[in-house]
Amino acid sequence: MLAEGDLVFLWSPAKGDSFLVRLSPGSVQGSHLGEMKHGDIMGMEYGDVIRTNRGSPFFILRPSVGEYTRRIKRQTQVIFPKDSGFIIQHLNFGPGATVVECGTGSGGLTAVFAHFVGDGGRVVSYDRREEFSRLARSNAERWGVAHRIEFKVRDAAEGFDERGADAVFLDVRNPWDYMGAAHEALAWGHHLGILVPTFNQIELTLVALREYGFADVQVLELLMRYLKTDPERIRPDDMMTAHTGFLIFGAKARGQNLGALPQTPQGSLLP
Amino acid sequence: MLAEGDLVFLWSPAKGDSFLVRLSPGSVQGSHLGEMKHGDIMGMEYGDVIRTNRGSPFFILRPSVGEYTRRIKRQTQVIFPKDSGFIIQHLNFGPGATVVECGTGSGGLTAVFAHFVGDGGRVVSYDRREEFSRLARSNAERWGVAHRIEFKVRDAAEGFDERGADAVFLDVRNPWDYMGAAHEALAWGHHLGILVPTFNQIELTLVALREYGFADVQVLELLMRYLKTDPERIRPDDMMTAHTGFLIFGAKARGQNLGALPQTPQGSLLP
Amino acid sequence: MLAEGDLVFLWSPAKGDSFLVRLSPGSVQGSHLGEMKHGDIMGMEYGDVIRTNRGSPFFILRPSVGEYTRRIKRQTQVIFPKDSGFIIQHLNFGPGATVVECGTGSGGLTAVFAHFVGDGGRVVSYDRREEFSRLARSNAERWGVAHRIEFKVRDAAEGFDERGADAVFLDVRNPWDYMGAAHEALAWGHHLGILVPTFNQIELTLVALREYGFADVQVLELLMRYLKTDPERIRPDDMMTAHTGFLIFGAKARGQNLGALPQTPQGSLLP
Amino acid sequence: MLAEGDLVFLWSPAKGDSFLVRLSPGSVQGSHLGEMKHGDIMGMEYGDVIRTNRGSPFFILRPSVGEYTRRIKRQTQVIFPKDSGFIIQHLNFGPGATVVECGTGSGGLTAVFAHFVGDGGRVVSYDRREEFSRLARSNAERWGVAHRIEFKVRDAAEGFDERGADAVFLDVRNPWDYMGAAHEALAWGHHLGILVPTFNQIELTLVALREYGFADVQVLELLMRYLKTDPERIRPDDMMTAHTGFLIFGAKARGQNLGALPQTPQGSLLP
Repeated sequence: MLAEGDLVFLWSPAKGDSFLVRLSPGSVQGSHLGEMKHGDIMGMEYGDVIRTNRGSPFFILRPSVGEYTRRIKRQTQVIFPKDSGFIIQHLNFGPGATVVECGTGSGGLTAVFAHFVGDGGRVVSYDRREEFSRLARSNAERWGVAHRIEFKVRDAAEGFDERGADAVFLDVRNPWDYMGAAHEALAWGHHLGILVPTFNQIELTLVALREYGFADVQVLELLMRYLKTDPERIRPDDMMTAHTGFLIFGAKARGQNLGALPQTPQGSLLP
Repeated sequence: MLAEGDLVFLWSPAKGDSFLVRLSPGSVQGSHLGEMKHGDIMGMEYGDVIRTNRGSPFFILRPSVGEYTRRIKRQTQVIFPKDSGFIIQHLNFGPGATVVECGTGSGGLTAVFAHFVGDGGRVVSYDRREEFSRLARSNAERWGVAHRIEFKVRDAAEGFDERGADAVFLDVRNPWDYMGAAHEALAWGHHLGILVPTFNQIELTLVALREYGFADVQVLELLMRYLKTDPERIRPDDMMTAHTGFLIFGAKARGQNLGALPQTPQGSLLP
Repeated sequence: MLAEGDLVFLWSPAKGDSFLVRLSPGSVQGSHLGEMKHGDIMGMEYGDVIRTNRGSPFFILRPSVGEYTRRIKRQTQVIFPKDSGFIIQHLNFGPGATVVECGTGSGGLTAVFAHFVGDGGRVVSYDRREEFSRLARSNAERWGVAHRIEFKVRDAAEGFDERGADAVFLDVRNPWDYMGAAHEALAWGHHLGILVPTFNQIELTLVALREYGFADVQVLELLMRYLKTDPERIRPDDMMTAHTGFLIFGAKARGQNLGALPQTPQGSLLP
Repeated sequence: MLAEGDLVFLWSPAKGDSFLVRLSPGSVQGSHLGEMKHGDIMGMEYGDVIRTNRGSPFFILRPSVGEYTRRIKRQTQVIFPKDSGFIIQHLNFGPGATVVECGTGSGGLTAVFAHFVGDGGRVVSYDRREEFSRLARSNAERWGVAHRIEFKVRDAAEGFDERGADAVFLDVRNPWDYMGAAHEALAWGHHLGILVPTFNQIELTLVALREYGFADVQVLELLMRYLKTDPERIRPDDMMTAHTGFLIFGAKARGQNLGALPQTPQGSLLP
């Protein structure tokens, strides 16, 4: 039975009118289809339907971490589930992992990381702008994972405090300036992840990864396309998000720069 | 220090010659660049470089669950990290979750699920073909998560044993025949996930989702494009995987079919 | 020197404010950056810059047929250059070709066809709705190719008047109902082209193509992604058109249905 | 009735075994499904079926310019119909146009250009490597459009001979070195087109376009995805071409560099 403090996803069959809310007595959720009192939702169950004061139905669903990242309060570009899902697998997150992130931003990715490392894991997130740490902490509290995160308010370019981290992730404008710090914080043989929106940034990042001898370097992008759900007229949506960012990965290795060479089928460039 | 039983990812700068292996004394890893003795890797560390008997370098990296799914022994089409990463977020997996899957196949997705639910979670995976359960168990043991999985060898179309599952995932040819069983096993307000390769299957699946009153129905596909990693000639790879499958999601709801209506901006089809 | 009746493309460096206009004394082109008098443009040259009454610059460029199709007056979904460019090559248009189209719609594709067949070619375009033929004729006149087009106002499902056409193109909701008519009008060994937006339509169209024994059947879609043009921040645009339609092609052949079989590497289904 | 010298497209329902051939008495077309004598095809018609000496059917279809570009003899990367179809519309080709191209390469694009300008048009194609001009001429002769093309064997970086061209197209490794020559050859207000495979080349090209004051600058890429043609299992192909090249366009304008500024919704960077 839903009670004060529970998180619910209010989903309307009318497109574009869905909400992720934490139940609080006396609060009211507005929508362009009418209002719903939080108090009326308390006592109902996940899966039930509530109607607005104007009669429009909203389904009371259990929220998911994927839905959460789309609906956080944001001052920055947020990460998309298509990207974060790939990142956590490529960086081998999972219950118990220790992860270092820079920068925090609105904390969407921070909370996803904290979700998947569980209570046995730990996320340390750096940002030099205090207002972002504050916003990210509030977003993480809403999702219930703030206790797994340590927010640090300073520029990590000079160095992270951590050593032997399971994974490091950089979401900054100039990742090449953080390459030394990331290399130092990361455990040997483990993977670094980076998100950049432009090709110019890919270029400079690849040069820096080469300089530090990272191996298994990969650059990729993910595209997500929704389809319409009318079984009699199945077709892709008219518009889609064409770009969020490029993902870059590399593994910290003692390779005297062997790994930074471009991959070649022949391997002929190797000594 | 790496020892017997450790899992290592041997990555060669020469494209297409990388291996995920569990170290075993006396074993030898072959490659078209020469051989490496497991015994020589024991005693080394993640991040080190080993050379084959013909002098080609391989980096000893820590394997990731993303890499693992690409390299399992398979008798079926395996899931790609681009898809599984989205699934675990949309179905709100995480440490402690209970998940029901049908069918097991080669167990790639089963092991990813088991990786992310942690020791406090549980995956129940159904397949009527015993050889698949056996292969999947062996793959899961290799990744070290078999103890979190219960394999059941029977056709689940008649019904799953579980009730109130956090999530259900269907990877079968005819998901519409499993819709009743999935609905019964799933907790109210929670999400069902489905993977199908063809549009004809989307059509029949959408009709079945409507019949059972699922809400928040979404259909989507994910595309991944690798870029070449030479900083002086950045460009997408020449070829890419154009299709793995379509992902379909829906939430179990008491909506008397309200949720199964196609989403419309106006919501005008609603009573 | 530009004169009355000339067609100019007024392009503003401010995004989203460009116009394709035919010069007419006394006319004024409005924009949210201010107004331009047609009379002021007359006497200038292609490549010159005109400023609005509020000082904003517009470049006077020579219009292209690609730009034209984006800017016609429309009552229907128009064809995109990405699609029409592929169609004219696959259907082997070129100076002198005779082409039959159904339905006319807003006439965007009709005018592209008429552009490429030249004065020696001929386009016959059917639509049962007279208002579309009228709109399409007016659009074609604007582009200066109306004299190459014959508009017929009737439902062509009962049959086209033409025989031995170089190419037939169907842009109707139910192409399967026009398959007999298209087959009859087309020259042997020549290609039919079809545009449909949904998968359900692909399915029924493929069955009809099989029934009439079409060979070299292809189904494809084209995606276009714009990149931002700042050399210091090169990246794809944030949003893109995710879907216009699927293109289907087939060649009229005396194959007793041989050609309608799905392509297989082995060809093992063939007698 | 097909005769000596006619061009036919021999299409086999068995994938990957289709040929574009010019009929010549005594010649034999081989395939892995058996042989066909050209002499047996003469006297047949487009649309007929010929069987190999091993009984496999081939459909005799009318070749299209799209099919032609895929099947030319090549020593270089060829242009794809998805790209060339967009180019000819954006550069406003059509019967009667005069076009300058650099470099010729294998001549695939040259022949497409020559196809669409008709007998009243003219293509001038530069390449400093004589073997390419020779190959391209032979390919153009095969398609029957060589009489519309003038091949020039020299490096055009120093300048083209032509002035006031309707369109200029650059398919060279370093388009920035040809920007002055292209600007000089092009008519005012007309469009230049460029194809480059890498982002690094986009960057340098955009800087050069800015320097010469080109307006209406656009950068884009086109992706083509084939679908399988079995109506009961409609789905995209497993693999697709992920990249051919980026298309860059700009219009020659007297804008004192106004047009080279990045497009902004506000236009606020303009004087």
